[in-house]
Amino acid sequence: MATPHLRSGEMTNLIAPDEQFLMLPAHALFKDTHLEVIHMNLAEGKSLPSHQVNGPITIQCLSGDLQVGLEAGNKTMRADDLLYLAADLPHAMLAVTNASFLVTIVLLKTVAR
Amino acid sequence: MATPHLRSGEMTNLIAPDEQFLMLPAHALFKDTHLEVIHMNLAEGKSLPSHQVNGPITIQCLSGDLQVGLEAGNKTMRADDLLYLAADLPHAMLAVTNASFLVTIVLLKTVAR
Repeated sequence: MATPHLRSGEMTNLIAPDEQFLMLPAHALFKDTHLEVIHMNLAEGKSLPSHQVNGPITIQCLSGDLQVGLEAGNKTMRADDLLYLAADLPHAMLAVTNASFLVTIVLLKTVAR
Repeated sequence: MATPHLRSGEMTNLIAPDEQFLMLPAHALFKDTHLEVIHMNLAEGKSLPSHQVNGPITIQCLSGDLQVGLEAGNKTMRADDLLYLAADLPHAMLAVTNASFLVTIVLLKTVAR
């Protein structure tokens, strides 16, 4: 199902998004040439294997308990925690409880090529 | 006063930051080559004149009522509202009540030059 993206100058509420988005594991709020913000929902016990992206990112926990696995150890994030990860830093995720979080990614692909 | 920045892999809580930061009008949570996240506090009635940056940004209201002035009109943001602005879009800000918000900026200077 196609989901609408924010256009420049538009806003959304992070805690009370459209109900349809609560059913989606991931929904891009918008994707700009250099910036993408994704709202993710991970059910309790679900995980994302370790991966990395070529730009810096932030992960912001909106609700639930989210464990982020880094080479330096695990971080357990709760609502309103913001984590900064430099480009190319491997990270895995595990939803300790149902977790909702925002991932903000700087897109550098067009820069590097 | 110098304030510590998050290093890659470190996190902070957006709602309960160190008390010292609540006294500051602006505090960079971190500044990466391509990404900066700034926590701003604006007292009721205070404003920032219209300005623009050369990369895309998001503004996320953490608390209070924040009016963002765009050429297309004003947006009033409340807690957990996220606004996306494309690069070079002029925007002004007015704190309708004491307002705390996060500004996420993609830094493209090093790309363009």
